[in-house]
Amino acid sequence: MKIDITISAADTTPERVADRSVAVIDVFRATSVMITALEHGIQRIIPVITIEEAENLRSQYMALGEEVITGGERNALKIPGFDKDNSPHSYMNNMELEGKTMIMTTTNGTRAVNASRSAHAIYIAAMLNYRAVCSQMMTDNRDITLVCSGRENKFTLEDALCAGLMADELLLQTGNAELSDIAWSIRDLYLLYQKDMKQGLKRSRHYNDLMQLGFDYDIDYCLQRGISDRVPWVNQQFQIVG
Amino acid sequence: MKIDITISAADTTPERVADRSVAVIDVFRATSVMITALEHGIQRIIPVITIEEAENLRSQYMALGEEVITGGERNALKIPGFDKDNSPHSYMNNMELEGKTMIMTTTNGTRAVNASRSAHAIYIAAMLNYRAVCSQMMTDNRDITLVCSGRENKFTLEDALCAGLMADELLLQTGNAELSDIAWSIRDLYLLYQKDMKQGLKRSRHYNDLMQLGFDYDIDYCLQRGISDRVPWVNQQFQIVG
Repeated sequence: MKIDITISAADTTPERVADRSVAVIDVFRATSVMITALEHGIQRIIPVITIEEAENLRSQYMALGEEVITGGERNALKIPGFDKDNSPHSYMNNMELEGKTMIMTTTNGTRAVNASRSAHAIYIAAMLNYRAVCSQMMTDNRDITLVCSGRENKFTLEDALCAGLMADELLLQTGNAELSDIAWSIRDLYLLYQKDMKQGLKRSRHYNDLMQLGFDYDIDYCLQRGISDRVPWVNQQFQIVG
Repeated sequence: MKIDITISAADTTPERVADRSVAVIDVFRATSVMITALEHGIQRIIPVITIEEAENLRSQYMALGEEVITGGERNALKIPGFDKDNSPHSYMNNMELEGKTMIMTTTNGTRAVNASRSAHAIYIAAMLNYRAVCSQMMTDNRDITLVCSGRENKFTLEDALCAGLMADELLLQTGNAELSDIAWSIRDLYLLYQKDMKQGLKRSRHYNDLMQLGFDYDIDYCLQRGISDRVPWVNQQFQIVG
């Protein structure tokens, strides 16, 4: 089994993911939100790239008499007119979400899902559910690409740490996986920081931007490892379910 | 001073290098060869992408009565009809190189130089001359991008270790450089392996391919840190001199 890691949506070329099992990672916060929303009642998530697409889709669902939830962010903040922001805490213990469809637009996570279209299977991963996604990928028994969403098509440390954690887990589970250079390097980087991930993150721009906006409770939540058994996946209609 | 690192020619978008001081790194072996050839008598190197370009250019120079040296590699091996291969040892203590122009085509290094065209200045760097290039970049006093050539548009460990070494040196020299997430991570990766770089490289595909081809003496040579004070640079005619 081969294991590769891409560092951004732009780095995720079709040949890097074709026919493989892919995990899309956007720890701060898109994939952490998706996992949390599905755990707390949302039935399916439709990822779209633009705000306009989200608004048009909402109108179409409303015309059909179906209520939908709109969520996501621009520059980490709630989009005007949307129901929910991009904080996992906004999707917890909220009866109004039960059974609903969510239309979601985020800057980087949505792009990374789109870039992975040629994959055999696309799973939604974060630190929260890393172990469950790794187990599913072991069952698939295909070559694996861990796709870091990054930020503005650049590497971000939090996604790399999650990919490194998953590469390490897959290495332990398989015993003989064949890692690419970048996969070994990011796995080693995770081992370097696994005891105190915030030590590394304190130098990261994304982490500091979120801290400055007061999202420290989101960061603490998103850095929890393996607390969820949920394995969301992207279906044929390009909706996230599971 | 901002310091960024790109992991391959494809990752080196114009905006990542525009108006910056750029160091192009291809440790195994293009930039190590360039530094060595210039130290041993070659006057200038013309980097070209294809074998055909190299052959056409040679014909044009020969028509002018100027003798040139052709060098480079495809799949790490000498190109049929070329004068020299891509081993630094082929360019040492060789009187016939004195004052000559060299036409060079390599798979990844040449692409990375091309991808850096929008830079303020492009320097040729490897472990051999890392300290001298860092000093020159400090004198430039511009934002810096360290461009790893990679291999087939993917990350390779040896280039990352050199970029990490340079990021660490620049950090020490400036005291207050602002590193991007990828720059911090690759610098940390270098610190992890600095005492035994081969420990990491033993898992790297490019290293193992070269070892299998019998290039262990090239590897030992290319991994020497700071033994050259030469700072080759790319001039207005897109030739490498210095």
